[in-house]
Amino acid sequence: MKNPLPHWLPILRWAPQYRAEHLAADGVAAAVVTLMLIPQSLAYALLAGMPAQTGLYASMLPLVAYAIFGTSNTLAVGPAAITSIMTASALGTMALAGSVGYVAAVALLTLMSGIMLFLMGALRLGVIANFLSHPVISGFVSASGLLIAASQLKHLLGIPLQGQTLPQLATSLGQHIGQWQGPAAAIGLLTLVFLVWARHSFKPRLRALGLRPMAADVIAKAAPVLALAVATLIAWGLRLEDGGLRVVGAVPGGLPPLTLPTLNTNLWPQVQQLATAALLISLVGFVESVSLGQSLAAKRRERIEPDAELRGLGAANIAAGLTGGFPVTGGFSRSVVNFDAGARTPAAGIYTAIGLLLAALLLTPALYHLPQTALAATIVASVLTLVDVHAFGRTWRYARTDFTALALTFVLTLTVGIEAGLMAGVGVSLLLHLWRTSRPHIATVGRVPGTEHYRNVLRHTVETHPGVLGLRVDESLYFANARPLEDHIAAEVAAHPDIEHVVLQCSAVNAIDASALESLEAITLRLKDAGVKLHLSEVKGPVMDRLERSDFLQHLTGRVFLTHHQAVTALTQPPH
Amino acid sequence: MKNPLPHWLPILRWAPQYRAEHLAADGVAAAVVTLMLIPQSLAYALLAGMPAQTGLYASMLPLVAYAIFGTSNTLAVGPAAITSIMTASALGTMALAGSVGYVAAVALLTLMSGIMLFLMGALRLGVIANFLSHPVISGFVSASGLLIAASQLKHLLGIPLQGQTLPQLATSLGQHIGQWQGPAAAIGLLTLVFLVWARHSFKPRLRALGLRPMAADVIAKAAPVLALAVATLIAWGLRLEDGGLRVVGAVPGGLPPLTLPTLNTNLWPQVQQLATAALLISLVGFVESVSLGQSLAAKRRERIEPDAELRGLGAANIAAGLTGGFPVTGGFSRSVVNFDAGARTPAAGIYTAIGLLLAALLLTPALYHLPQTALAATIVASVLTLVDVHAFGRTWRYARTDFTALALTFVLTLTVGIEAGLMAGVGVSLLLHLWRTSRPHIATVGRVPGTEHYRNVLRHTVETHPGVLGLRVDESLYFANARPLEDHIAAEVAAHPDIEHVVLQCSAVNAIDASALESLEAITLRLKDAGVKLHLSEVKGPVMDRLERSDFLQHLTGRVFLTHHQAVTALTQPPH
Repeated sequence: MKNPLPHWLPILRWAPQYRAEHLAADGVAAAVVTLMLIPQSLAYALLAGMPAQTGLYASMLPLVAYAIFGTSNTLAVGPAAITSIMTASALGTMALAGSVGYVAAVALLTLMSGIMLFLMGALRLGVIANFLSHPVISGFVSASGLLIAASQLKHLLGIPLQGQTLPQLATSLGQHIGQWQGPAAAIGLLTLVFLVWARHSFKPRLRALGLRPMAADVIAKAAPVLALAVATLIAWGLRLEDGGLRVVGAVPGGLPPLTLPTLNTNLWPQVQQLATAALLISLVGFVESVSLGQSLAAKRRERIEPDAELRGLGAANIAAGLTGGFPVTGGFSRSVVNFDAGARTPAAGIYTAIGLLLAALLLTPALYHLPQTALAATIVASVLTLVDVHAFGRTWRYARTDFTALALTFVLTLTVGIEAGLMAGVGVSLLLHLWRTSRPHIATVGRVPGTEHYRNVLRHTVETHPGVLGLRVDESLYFANARPLEDHIAAEVAAHPDIEHVVLQCSAVNAIDASALESLEAITLRLKDAGVKLHLSEVKGPVMDRLERSDFLQHLTGRVFLTHHQAVTALTQPPH
Repeated sequence: MKNPLPHWLPILRWAPQYRAEHLAADGVAAAVVTLMLIPQSLAYALLAGMPAQTGLYASMLPLVAYAIFGTSNTLAVGPAAITSIMTASALGTMALAGSVGYVAAVALLTLMSGIMLFLMGALRLGVIANFLSHPVISGFVSASGLLIAASQLKHLLGIPLQGQTLPQLATSLGQHIGQWQGPAAAIGLLTLVFLVWARHSFKPRLRALGLRPMAADVIAKAAPVLALAVATLIAWGLRLEDGGLRVVGAVPGGLPPLTLPTLNTNLWPQVQQLATAALLISLVGFVESVSLGQSLAAKRRERIEPDAELRGLGAANIAAGLTGGFPVTGGFSRSVVNFDAGARTPAAGIYTAIGLLLAALLLTPALYHLPQTALAATIVASVLTLVDVHAFGRTWRYARTDFTALALTFVLTLTVGIEAGLMAGVGVSLLLHLWRTSRPHIATVGRVPGTEHYRNVLRHTVETHPGVLGLRVDESLYFANARPLEDHIAAEVAAHPDIEHVVLQCSAVNAIDASALESLEAITLRLKDAGVKLHLSEVKGPVMDRLERSDFLQHLTGRVFLTHHQAVTALTQPPH
């Protein structure tokens, strides 16, 4: 038997072959990612309603856990915008943001999400994530981006702001807009403008100033760190916090604490309350992470394993839950930077964790004067890229059903809430899918003159015979569309008294379930009573295998033909 | 504009052409059906927990309403076994069977079911009924048949018996079996034996005694009426009710009362409590009725309209709800008899209603001494035919997923309850369907030597080229299976470094939703990054129309070929 350890611990596949050249490549990539992750981890902690240091905690052990269990060489795991606001939303009604109860509840939520992900991976249940369709994810992410940006107005303007939905936030903004703080607004908006400018124009400008490409690249990626450093210096130099500017304040430095859920009578009710949110955070985090990891791996003709990714993300979140963090997943911008900077193995994640550990040990005193408005600006700059306006028009043009799912998810996420929007989207996309397949396209087909091809009589000029009705069903036959087929055939035969043979062309029928089989038997019997024979053509191998296990073929009044042309030729031959 | 009245009132289509020969045919059929319906209507009232006369009420105006709105010439509407036990089950926890509150609640349930059916018909929502798959219906009907038979042991043995599920009934039976009543058991079992014998052997025996075929046929169909008459005479002659034999007792004769729901503060909570049951009764009644009506119509190359059937059944149930009845639907045995006896138009139902009216006016004194155990025997004799033992083996051999839905519905209906079993069955069959389509069959295809056909390399000896990977996806592409396709192609390309072209054969792809489109775009980009081109072949017209509305074809690195053979020929030609 094959050694099962490398299956469960993918680190054993690459660590034995780890060489110095890997160390160099991974080290450089880790250094750049660390520069990005320090401000992001603090900002997403703020977004999740958690103390700033928990962002650092969430960026240490979880990265090591992913490096042991994950299979992507380039995915940069850590705090991310969507999972952070989902965390804040899940806890919104349970405890006050930032309080001890809140921190403990987030740790429990994170641990639960980690265990769910790990179990889904172990049980190969990653397929569940497929039920989050692209339009639902797209509508959800766009709406979440807007909600995140709206929620940060609190810090950007230095005003109190309450609410979890856009209408609530807008109402609260209307009440408090008069209290806006000049220093907070000035620092926040300047930081935001700089970051938006820096995204595309910083690197070319640095190059124009004569920096070498490599140096220009690293400095451009450190733009948020630079912006925060400058903002901190200004706030400190001008003593703006004395005038009411809110800063991060005292951040406990050092190693993350080991935290276990308190085993008391409140635990089980809390677990029940958080279960749905934990599942949704798990699924959204996994979908975002696995599609990102797959895209990056394919560029180098590498592969990731979805089930191992579930276990990797699960281990990362279990680590986050046990060390005072909050939910983590693969971050888009950091992963792309990690890939571009040349990360070769998951070890780059371990080196990033060491970078964050050094930051936690050395940098925390410097964070005291960091203005919250500047952190909020880095969040807004990054989440505005999540809002995909083009998806609306593109999806509308492509398919109304998909647009319905997208628009509904978008609107409900903004107006009712994060979880309600996502769940309604999933439900609606399932119903729309069933609705579509329950109304199959059934074409009456005729022969394209001079060929053996049979096409839709409504789209093509074709030859037909009055005694033979050829029908092509463009859908697998199952319970939801079996009866409409009965109705369709009954109507056709009642309308055309000359018909003696009905031939079902089954080239697009990928499956026939037991309900459809009963319908086919009913159709056969009814046609028989009306003096009409039923034939099949172009039945696929797997479908035929199954039909042979029933007694349908014994009851069939007609024959099963290999091709539709053979059927029509045989049935229209003059008797001799 | 076409006159819309005949659409809404199908009676206007046939009544103007009504002739004397129709009257004769419909009259004979109605006479035979009346003979069957009198005992059935009393027995199903008992089963529904309603006073005996309500069975007669449910067999008058509802039949007239169906004749006005329905489209089947042969369907015999009235009380039926399954809808009756569903009624008893729905009310089980709300009020005491037979009490005034119970009768009013059943009238409300019936009215609600009628309104739901009528609205579904008016809004063309009959498609909802398709989600009751054949295995779910089969498991549900078999389990209901057993539950009905078990519940009748109460009357057959003359013992108290409580419970709505098989375990509850068995426990209750164990407690009370010692109290069984000799007269009730004797009359009940003799009636049952006679009815089971009569089903197949009464008519041949009457013929052997010298009766003409027609007379033998009518007498054989009146077997339940004869049995009840004899049982009544015996009970009356031997004064068995003095010894404790339970009889029907005083039945108010005459016309049904007009009953409207009482408009008080209890109405809305009652409506909410009954809504699910009303919907389930509507769906089950409609599915049974429409498949029966369709089978009978097809035998004469006639047609029924499913939406008109919904309105017809809706009108019938509204009539039942307003005249003190309980839910009605098309009855299987009566409809077949109606058909065989030669009913030509829905007027046969009106004549049957007149027959029942005469029975209500003249027969009720005679019903006083009718033993309940004999009525229970007619129920048991008829419901045992509902239990379809063969469906289990047949479905198991055909498809495990369908068997799972059938077995689960059967077991849960017996052990948890009528409604829970049916709903669990619907939910499970939807999930199993999604699960099946989320794991599509993807075949690597090669050329069958000497032909232009491409088949699965695992099933056939075919020719392949190392540089060209031909894949046939046997499923429409939608969100649930889009990502597995990405995984499959990524794995194939990672495993075969020689591949330069991937050709997707789309002959079985009936639709591509927005999620699958994004996946195809991701696949295209990833293959491009790996130096591989993606091509499509045999894309269907409607799918191609839609792709042309997106920008996918501009991004496609390869081409769209009319046939798979053209693709492989073009891609394997030596450059020149």
